[in-house]
Amino acid sequence: MTAPPATAPPAQDLLAIKAAALDLLFRTARTANTFTDEPVTDEQVRAIVDLIRNGPTAFNSQPLRIVLIRSPEARQRLLPHLIKDNQAKTDAAPLVAILAADTEFHEHLPRVFPHKPQAKDWFSGADAANHRETQARFNAALQIGYLIIGIRAAGLAAGPMAGFDPDGVDAEFFPDGRLRSLLVLNIGRPGPDAWRDRLPRLSHDDIIHTL
Amino acid sequence: MTAPPATAPPAQDLLAIKAAALDLLFRTARTANTFTDEPVTDEQVRAIVDLIRNGPTAFNSQPLRIVLIRSPEARQRLLPHLIKDNQAKTDAAPLVAILAADTEFHEHLPRVFPHKPQAKDWFSGADAANHRETQARFNAALQIGYLIIGIRAAGLAAGPMAGFDPDGVDAEFFPDGRLRSLLVLNIGRPGPDAWRDRLPRLSHDDIIHTL
Repeated sequence: MTAPPATAPPAQDLLAIKAAALDLLFRTARTANTFTDEPVTDEQVRAIVDLIRNGPTAFNSQPLRIVLIRSPEARQRLLPHLIKDNQAKTDAAPLVAILAADTEFHEHLPRVFPHKPQAKDWFSGADAANHRETQARFNAALQIGYLIIGIRAAGLAAGPMAGFDPDGVDAEFFPDGRLRSLLVLNIGRPGPDAWRDRLPRLSHDDIIHTL
Repeated sequence: MTAPPATAPPAQDLLAIKAAALDLLFRTARTANTFTDEPVTDEQVRAIVDLIRNGPTAFNSQPLRIVLIRSPEARQRLLPHLIKDNQAKTDAAPLVAILAADTEFHEHLPRVFPHKPQAKDWFSGADAANHRETQARFNAALQIGYLIIGIRAAGLAAGPMAGFDPDGVDAEFFPDGRLRSLLVLNIGRPGPDAWRDRLPRLSHDDIIHTL
């Protein structure tokens, strides 16, 4: 038997999915800044949601809500809350969504976490509101991670944007306070000059620590 | 030309990646509760990190840190902070990681967001600490979403656990306060009886709203 190589083999050897799929989902995928006119249909959105809906969340809480901005009126209500740099591309995207956390996800727990009937009580009441919001934001963010990869699996590009006023969006779209906006997301086929230069990534030594 | 079908076509038709890959990454993937003895190597971890490292984060902040618990001593320091239900499987998993958010991610911004040299200042100083922690937790959670899918792409199962005492883990492993634990993650090949029954998922109408 020969000794294992002293340097790591190419990463591809260690992955179970073929390179073209991994490129589409991860490696060459990019945040798009322009889009073609091709519509993104409700059927496509449902296929993507079906794909990612089994992704794990704490207590199976699934707090992500996807608010599709389909009408011109709704889009005009959204645009003023985006930073200037994000307004033109969001005005032109085939589909825009507000990704939000449901801070009352616990209402669904008897249905989605039925083996622990007391789970809803862990999050009930005014004194649990902060804990509930923390959990909602964290688990919805996990689901946004799954969603971005799922959008790419549909051959579409995602354009997630943190550059907006969340308080303004919440007041405009979610006045009862139940949903909290986390990101605004443009979805479509990438258009001309859709990509900026790739920004530098941290090194393994920055990310991975071993104890 | 015929009219489009009145009902949505099967979801697979709307997705660009072949079904076997989507099953592995999303559909039939499960949170594993038992693992085989097969080790998870540093090369595999690096391949997974390479795969997901281009995933988008706000300001390219990349706050996720992966602390691999390799030594028996480190594992024994971790176990008491897990809820009872999570201790035996974590003791037996081939690899355990603490996934944490770097609350001082802004130190890296001059390197990873070089076109906006002022970005580090947006997050500097004691009065930005809360904002920084919120951003670190949210963007690290996005990256955990990418990571869980990336682990599956390597043919491995991920077992994310929220059932632990984060203050206890932080005091034990991150006493200087810079990193904050978000999840504990078991990684390996699934073992016997690795799966519980799939829990119910929310419906499209629960998740998707249209304006």
